[in-house]
Amino acid sequence: MARKPTLPNDTPEGLGGLDLALIEAARDLIRLHHRPKWHTVAAALRGADGRIWTGLHLGTSVGRLAVCAEAVALGRAIIEGDGTIATAAAVRHPKPHEDSQEIAVVSPCGGCREMILDFAPLAWVILPDMQRHPIASLLPAPYRRQPRTGEQDEGV
Amino acid sequence: MARKPTLPNDTPEGLGGLDLALIEAARDLIRLHHRPKWHTVAAALRGADGRIWTGLHLGTSVGRLAVCAEAVALGRAIIEGDGTIATAAAVRHPKPHEDSQEIAVVSPCGGCREMILDFAPLAWVILPDMQRHPIASLLPAPYRRQPRTGEQDEGV
Amino acid sequence: MARKPTLPNDTPEGLGGLDLALIEAARDLIRLHHRPKWHTVAAALRGADGRIWTGLHLGTSVGRLAVCAEAVALGRAIIEGDGTIATAAAVRHPKPHEDSQEIAVVSPCGGCREMILDFAPLAWVILPDMQRHPIASLLPAPYRRQPRTGEQDEGV
Amino acid sequence: MARKPTLPNDTPEGLGGLDLALIEAARDLIRLHHRPKWHTVAAALRGADGRIWTGLHLGTSVGRLAVCAEAVALGRAIIEGDGTIATAAAVRHPKPHEDSQEIAVVSPCGGCREMILDFAPLAWVILPDMQRHPIASLLPAPYRRQPRTGEQDEGV
Repeated sequence: MARKPTLPNDTPEGLGGLDLALIEAARDLIRLHHRPKWHTVAAALRGADGRIWTGLHLGTSVGRLAVCAEAVALGRAIIEGDGTIATAAAVRHPKPHEDSQEIAVVSPCGGCREMILDFAPLAWVILPDMQRHPIASLLPAPYRRQPRTGEQDEGV
Repeated sequence: MARKPTLPNDTPEGLGGLDLALIEAARDLIRLHHRPKWHTVAAALRGADGRIWTGLHLGTSVGRLAVCAEAVALGRAIIEGDGTIATAAAVRHPKPHEDSQEIAVVSPCGGCREMILDFAPLAWVILPDMQRHPIASLLPAPYRRQPRTGEQDEGV
Repeated sequence: MARKPTLPNDTPEGLGGLDLALIEAARDLIRLHHRPKWHTVAAALRGADGRIWTGLHLGTSVGRLAVCAEAVALGRAIIEGDGTIATAAAVRHPKPHEDSQEIAVVSPCGGCREMILDFAPLAWVILPDMQRHPIASLLPAPYRRQPRTGEQDEGV
Repeated sequence: MARKPTLPNDTPEGLGGLDLALIEAARDLIRLHHRPKWHTVAAALRGADGRIWTGLHLGTSVGRLAVCAEAVALGRAIIEGDGTIATAAAVRHPKPHEDSQEIAVVSPCGGCREMILDFAPLAWVILPDMQRHPIASLLPAPYRRQPRTGEQDEGV
């Protein structure tokens, strides 16, 4: 089950074995699929029931139409699982010429922070400092939220 | 196996049983998950090996950070399947107050056309006219393509 | 004044002096501001009253959060002009290692086609073939349109 | 001139007359251009030289292809000004049925936080608490930055 953020909710926590397994799941995926520009980042989400859903970044010729790995993972969590997110992690494959060839943990982008906050406001996110942070602490004072039961429609 | 576009490659084709099954797979998904604003569109992709991968639109409080259903489906096709796209379809759930309550086929947006053209330039797309169209005919004279083997990097 | 598309509306037209001036306006802007990754594309829109509004592509560390040059130009046209678009053009600065160092005309991406079609469905777009094309012919069978007077809201 | 963030750099500051003028500039713009769904948010940026650049949100039929007001304002600041951002503010026009009809200050979305941090890492942002916050405090531990002089290219 998703742990609630400790109070105050910007307090990070150390990683446990489940967190390390989540990072490894993302690493395994990007090792398998890495293709510079097209697939450089992988994400892994652990649902409240413990299952792990991975996702792959989808690059595009027109950069702004790319899709983040977290979104693919969330889509899978909703379709194949129960849609909950307890903890999220993402890793990035280095480019061939970079000094470090470690597949390191990376922070979610601002767009993914919005998405995770919408779908799982109590989720934890693993950052490059190798600690778990409440998603709410990563997007302080967010743009006004709409309840997920709202009837608003953005045009789709 | 993915049929090659007929020549000239803007000639639509009538739908067969596999195409109708693809539409139904998308309809089944949105019936199950529909939530106004958050999940209104579902997509289904048929890979070259005949398997179907579905995807769900992910709405967000900030509209421009939403993710299209086709992207989730493509991510699943790459991670769980062989990543090929022979045919794509998407459907939209109507809002409660709309006259027609049919879950109708919708066209892919311009962003998804870019993505499909990058990953599967020979794919077919089912449109609301209930015909199959080559993706290349839906985005004529596209922004310059980069080969998928390119080493370019958009920052991720 | 914006010319209406000829019928059938997928017939391109040759360029006139105003069109060439539009391309030059975009070229001048990217020559001034070019910075690899951050500003590589410039756009220019001619309003119905003949005034020209230019825009610059805004790159971002996270590729999918970039903003296209056409969007900046359209924003300026609305704020500083009358918001009409008669004709649109975009150019791309080559990278240092590319064989051709010409600042060539490029096609609008699928995202910009959606935006132009929303705001100016009768606009012409200059393509790399150096002809004017109706925007409607560049995004055939578009995703369902909503009237610009609609009360829908995508969450902002 | 842009004030440097105080240390520690997550300390907000009260607003001065220039800040209130910035908010009013954004309010004036959205009063003039408000159209539900299409233009609901306006932004205003004050450059290091004191000049103000406003921008308008551009809605689209396909929600995820919308463009934020901050991006239009930044484009204008670069093209018409010196491209610096000392302080940023945004306001949102309420929908007709909302209880409060105040044009209130809103927080920038996660996407705009990325963009502002790329272009002006020392900028201040005015939030709904009516205080100035360092942009760096609004996107803690951001996705890895690339130097703006980098030769990377996201495909445009």
